[in-house]
Amino acid sequence: MNIASPDKELSGVDTPFKVDRDRIIAAVDAAFDAQVDFLSGLIRCASLRGQEAEVQNLVEAALRGRGYEVERQPLDSSLIGRHPAFSPTTVSYADFWNVIGVRRPAVEHGRSLILNAHVDIVPTGEPERWQYPPFGPTRRDDWLYGRGSGDMKAGLSAAIFALDAISAAGLELTAPIQVHSVVEEEITGNGAAMALAGGYVADAVLIPEPTDEKLVRANSGVIKFAITIHGTPAHPREVSGGMSALDAAVRLIDRLRALEARWNEERPTKPFFDEVENPAALTIGTINGGEWIASVPSSCRFEGRIGFYPGDDPHERVKEFEAFIANVSTEDPLVQRCPKPIVEWVGVVHAGYTLAPGSDAEALLAQAHAAANAPHGSPLQAYVMACYLDAAVYSVHAGIPSLVYGPVAENIHAIDERVSLSSLRRVTKTIALFVAGWCGVRAAS
Amino acid sequence: MNIASPDKELSGVDTPFKVDRDRIIAAVDAAFDAQVDFLSGLIRCASLRGQEAEVQNLVEAALRGRGYEVERQPLDSSLIGRHPAFSPTTVSYADFWNVIGVRRPAVEHGRSLILNAHVDIVPTGEPERWQYPPFGPTRRDDWLYGRGSGDMKAGLSAAIFALDAISAAGLELTAPIQVHSVVEEEITGNGAAMALAGGYVADAVLIPEPTDEKLVRANSGVIKFAITIHGTPAHPREVSGGMSALDAAVRLIDRLRALEARWNEERPTKPFFDEVENPAALTIGTINGGEWIASVPSSCRFEGRIGFYPGDDPHERVKEFEAFIANVSTEDPLVQRCPKPIVEWVGVVHAGYTLAPGSDAEALLAQAHAAANAPHGSPLQAYVMACYLDAAVYSVHAGIPSLVYGPVAENIHAIDERVSLSSLRRVTKTIALFVAGWCGVRAAS
Repeated sequence: MNIASPDKELSGVDTPFKVDRDRIIAAVDAAFDAQVDFLSGLIRCASLRGQEAEVQNLVEAALRGRGYEVERQPLDSSLIGRHPAFSPTTVSYADFWNVIGVRRPAVEHGRSLILNAHVDIVPTGEPERWQYPPFGPTRRDDWLYGRGSGDMKAGLSAAIFALDAISAAGLELTAPIQVHSVVEEEITGNGAAMALAGGYVADAVLIPEPTDEKLVRANSGVIKFAITIHGTPAHPREVSGGMSALDAAVRLIDRLRALEARWNEERPTKPFFDEVENPAALTIGTINGGEWIASVPSSCRFEGRIGFYPGDDPHERVKEFEAFIANVSTEDPLVQRCPKPIVEWVGVVHAGYTLAPGSDAEALLAQAHAAANAPHGSPLQAYVMACYLDAAVYSVHAGIPSLVYGPVAENIHAIDERVSLSSLRRVTKTIALFVAGWCGVRAAS
Repeated sequence: MNIASPDKELSGVDTPFKVDRDRIIAAVDAAFDAQVDFLSGLIRCASLRGQEAEVQNLVEAALRGRGYEVERQPLDSSLIGRHPAFSPTTVSYADFWNVIGVRRPAVEHGRSLILNAHVDIVPTGEPERWQYPPFGPTRRDDWLYGRGSGDMKAGLSAAIFALDAISAAGLELTAPIQVHSVVEEEITGNGAAMALAGGYVADAVLIPEPTDEKLVRANSGVIKFAITIHGTPAHPREVSGGMSALDAAVRLIDRLRALEARWNEERPTKPFFDEVENPAALTIGTINGGEWIASVPSSCRFEGRIGFYPGDDPHERVKEFEAFIANVSTEDPLVQRCPKPIVEWVGVVHAGYTLAPGSDAEALLAQAHAAANAPHGSPLQAYVMACYLDAAVYSVHAGIPSLVYGPVAENIHAIDERVSLSSLRRVTKTIALFVAGWCGVRAAS
């Protein structure tokens, strides 16, 4: 949907676009090759879960080199179950930390801002199915290939280089700016939760996830589960004496499609979700069962996620999910032959958020988007993203207006993930103009 | 079925039962505690695939200590595809070897015999589900618990201690006896194939698999497959743009039940299989798919086995299986969205065998069974075992009459595997009497 006309005059928003637009845009252009180099360096770090140290060190050095105050913020797992923004985890957080850079103005009279990006990435799938090595960033025409290129190291580069461009344009911000380089977005959201729990709040947050240069109007609440089923192992010569945990798991996955359908049926009453094709989007992400080719499997475990709507209490959805499994386990002829399936909550258990239309932040982003794309480009569009986003942490638990807006990318979480460099360049400009407008600028001293 | 009356007189079979029965039986009884100790030592060796060295060393020492000529026979993987008894493997055979013990008589006028047992075992499943540690053999009442207790370390102990009892009774065999302690039965059958390829043949083979003191009349041909499906990974926010390899695998498993049903429908025309409930017994033993809880899985692999009938060419069944998969991959709406599934043959590809009724070997075993159990006990029963057995190697490729007969065991390939010690004692006696009758005995010099 079209959320704001680029020509609309906005009261109370002091935009820098007329005087500073060209200088800021020129500064983004001037540094863009360096930005792509920096982004390539980020992609080279295979920052899978638990392996984010290398990329975080790189980000930390980049921020320190630019004069930000930097905190390495360890994740405090004792907050899980105590702070409402945290979700369950199955791993120790001994070696997990956010990098948070802050720059405070000499004279402060604008609005503070957080630019957030996550550095964790998902696995690559079979590397041999990629056209180019997933951790060997490769540029072909407008595309930069690599795992994490779109989701969301490009966005992180946009945040840092947008701020650089403001400085390079001879300007300094008149409100505090924070860069949150967080971990754990892809599984728990506990990186963003930790940033928030550490007291890092602001008047708005912008997260340059790959959104095709659109704004996210709302996202899904999400819960991430693991289900383990035990069967009765047996030798193939007496299969009828056993009960295959694998067969029961396959049946349970099939039955779960009914829960997905039921949750999807609620969408007509849910603001912004009425035209989303599959808001629940039950996804079974992994399955592992059995130990031996010629034995009836004794156990099978699968993991997945399912979504729901902003405003829904995720803990109520957890109860609903568990009740559904319990019911299947008592009435399904196959599943009832196994002990009750064990449901674990292994990642995000979080509400969705909505960006209420009409905010100053959104209006300004629309203006920045238009100004960065002038004289071409279309007005800023907004859409619903049926997945978890760290924006939900800032929005739900701190009421911070949360803008998710970033470059065109393709095949995120898939083979041949890539980001459009022309889009990244535009988005970097939009972010720079937005930051300048939101925080305010003055000539650098 | 009742295959032979214990009272039947058999021409040409010189049974030692009348004169030596009591001495041999007493010798088995006298050594039975030692036999259980030896068996417990075998169980303590966690001889999973590729980890058979410890148990083979123990067997080798036992045979050398008893004066057998012993060969450590490495598995020669170059025979795969060249010698018809061999099946495909996915592992290197660098550290796989059989132990073969041979004792030749001073004066030879009986019939030679192989006693075969496999030492490899299948995984335990979750050890915490066992009443007793799977590799900590535990005796409770009549049962000895442990992985491999029934399948088939008890049988191996029976073979060795049956031969001991003949010696202890003051007798020596008048024909060559071989003990084949082989690997790889649980996956490829290439241990027995190697023994055969090494020239170890005889006039009969007896394999004390756990058969509840019955004789195996026939077994299934078996093929063991792995199927890999590639999908199109995607982010949950755009599941419709991906194609879950896991969902396709689940569908393909479901469709394979039709092949199982079709092969089962052939049973009315198949000798001995007409009353077998599920001769094909499609078993999916393992499944592994996906890498990330919140990604549409890019690949999924499952392994399994399916059976057919003696006389069927396993390579024709392979073709039939592959054609079935190819057909599903073109006409199933879900599976056709993925590249054609990759079918690999990763274990046994072998024909079944039938023990033709009326053989001298069977008749003598029936007499030995009756004599060992006299005055109680029921006549020897025979039944069909719908699984792979190493007996097929000796029978199909060398025409050796193959007797599979062993103790009562429960939960093989399952939790709390156990063997009945009273049954093991009876079976050891039966084997001793059979060996004495088959090979012939004379007073030890």
